[in-house]
Amino acid sequence: MERIYNFSAGPAMLPQEVLEQARDELLNWHGCGMSVMEMTHRGKDFSAIIAQAEGDLRELLNVPANYKVLFLQGGATMQFAQIPLNLLAGRSADYIVTGAWSKKAFKEANKVGSARLVATTEASNFTRLPQKAEISFDPDAAYLHVCTNETVHGVEMHDISALEASVPLVADMSSHILSRPVDISQYNLVYGGAQKNIGPAGLTLVIVREDLLGRAPANIPTMLDYAVQAENGSMLNTPPTYSIYIAGLVFQWLKKQGGLAAMEQTNIAKAKLLYETIDTSCLYHNPVEPACRSRMNIPFTLNKPELDESFIAEAKKQGIVSIKGHKMVGGMRASIYNAMPLEGVQALVSFMQDFENQYG
Amino acid sequence: MERIYNFSAGPAMLPQEVLEQARDELLNWHGCGMSVMEMTHRGKDFSAIIAQAEGDLRELLNVPANYKVLFLQGGATMQFAQIPLNLLAGRSADYIVTGAWSKKAFKEANKVGSARLVATTEASNFTRLPQKAEISFDPDAAYLHVCTNETVHGVEMHDISALEASVPLVADMSSHILSRPVDISQYNLVYGGAQKNIGPAGLTLVIVREDLLGRAPANIPTMLDYAVQAENGSMLNTPPTYSIYIAGLVFQWLKKQGGLAAMEQTNIAKAKLLYETIDTSCLYHNPVEPACRSRMNIPFTLNKPELDESFIAEAKKQGIVSIKGHKMVGGMRASIYNAMPLEGVQALVSFMQDFENQYG
Repeated sequence: MERIYNFSAGPAMLPQEVLEQARDELLNWHGCGMSVMEMTHRGKDFSAIIAQAEGDLRELLNVPANYKVLFLQGGATMQFAQIPLNLLAGRSADYIVTGAWSKKAFKEANKVGSARLVATTEASNFTRLPQKAEISFDPDAAYLHVCTNETVHGVEMHDISALEASVPLVADMSSHILSRPVDISQYNLVYGGAQKNIGPAGLTLVIVREDLLGRAPANIPTMLDYAVQAENGSMLNTPPTYSIYIAGLVFQWLKKQGGLAAMEQTNIAKAKLLYETIDTSCLYHNPVEPACRSRMNIPFTLNKPELDESFIAEAKKQGIVSIKGHKMVGGMRASIYNAMPLEGVQALVSFMQDFENQYG
Repeated sequence: MERIYNFSAGPAMLPQEVLEQARDELLNWHGCGMSVMEMTHRGKDFSAIIAQAEGDLRELLNVPANYKVLFLQGGATMQFAQIPLNLLAGRSADYIVTGAWSKKAFKEANKVGSARLVATTEASNFTRLPQKAEISFDPDAAYLHVCTNETVHGVEMHDISALEASVPLVADMSSHILSRPVDISQYNLVYGGAQKNIGPAGLTLVIVREDLLGRAPANIPTMLDYAVQAENGSMLNTPPTYSIYIAGLVFQWLKKQGGLAAMEQTNIAKAKLLYETIDTSCLYHNPVEPACRSRMNIPFTLNKPELDESFIAEAKKQGIVSIKGHKMVGGMRASIYNAMPLEGVQALVSFMQDFENQYG
């Protein structure tokens, strides 16, 4: 069987070239006689791998010199706690809730510390983003937290001009980081789980401005202290070495594609094709306001929900899998991260049109 | 270049058959059209992978039914904090310090909570284990923590009869788990980083008796709450899926070798060969009391430390790498986990004898 088009929200498709290289050097990396999985993280081979990965990532995202890049573990969910534990310092933080993931982040911040809800679009079923006038910032907040792309609800912040807070800006970019250029200097801390646009699950990326380091209380778990991780180059203990290696291969692949500006053009074309198909059909529907629609996660429902199961089964026959929507939203969801080729979206669109012609 | 003999303390060698299988199915697992790295963790394929891994591990270690098996992240170092955060419940815990790793665990427990040092062999440079009479247990302790194999100092608890405490027993088994049969029912919580005898770095195994669940305070990070992880089958969020898959292949390999009783015989033979070579030589020396010597991590010094660099360089020419000792102990260290074949130890011993004949 051929490789298929996998529309999973994460873990998700990886570039085939990356997987082929990983396969070819799995038992013997660059003639060193061992797999990357077997290498001591303190040796020169792995030191070169992690340094190259960090350097390529800094280049791709144009990370300013006064930001640390950390390769951590635990996913965005660990960050939901780690961020307030490091940054609150006895104060409260502001949270904007625009979907399932920022809602979880807000809840966790209130579990381990104190957080204030400064805007939510839950009453609109998370189909839009809040206007600036709807947000009541606290000038004394330790930070403002946002999720710039909501994986479940398919809402993306294409600009952040509504976020003119005077406090540090913290952004969960898990599901759209590296999909387009972003001005890191507008943020004080950016984070994301790897399993969408970076690499395998089990790796978490944190990019943090140096002035936020060192605010953690004395009784924080050492592993969760950003300052300690930064001092140790993400190697306080053994990092997830193989995941970092695969992420490094993804970064090299992105550079070969022309970097993030080129990726953005492809991602715009992919999303446009799918949204146009949805919007011009009589069977499919996406509820999100056009200006807030995600290029990465595109939920859509069928006007005849009794067709959902047939849609999924017929899609699978065409090599289109993991298309079922999240249970909170229902229907379908197509996650079309960097590694999903335009051909994959074309195959999906073609299938959707055939399906509508047959059953719609 | 051929694959070499890697004596690293971790990440460490993996069985070649495991790596070959991982390579062969890297782009397309069991004909599903995708890599295990790309699979949603909520789908039936990955559900089968993790269920098989847990089932095989339970069979190998004969884990009683009233213990949960958790696949977590953050390594043993995260556990050093997670254990007291979950189990202290406002009390203090007892720690026995027998080397670098239990010393770190004790320090971290005192950072996030309260811990009492009930015995230490630091005055003997961690070359022995404490006698029962040297240990002053606290009958009100929340638990007693030990490290049953000290990776840096090469000290292993071959029996735990000195630990007749009346409180729950917690053991860091990172560097010798799966190297021999162990009676899990003698422990209340057992844990280990994967990167020695289990699989790739980035995966942490916790085996915990159910009655220890649910003791965490309300403000603990959700990711660190054992009860929540147990309720969610280690999938509160995306687990380190690829590392779990590789660990599962290692478990299947162990079963094919005849299980842990068979592995123990091989490990005894490997360790005996190396210790006898050290003890009968005039050049090499291991300082640990024979009854406490580790079968997994064997540190040794050269009586002529000026030969250290030559030893390492000459070894490398023979395909023997990562043999340099930890800086706390100096000299050399051979870590000979399950995946190190007897032939690897024979090659090391043969090289050591040749080196002694030439330079000793």
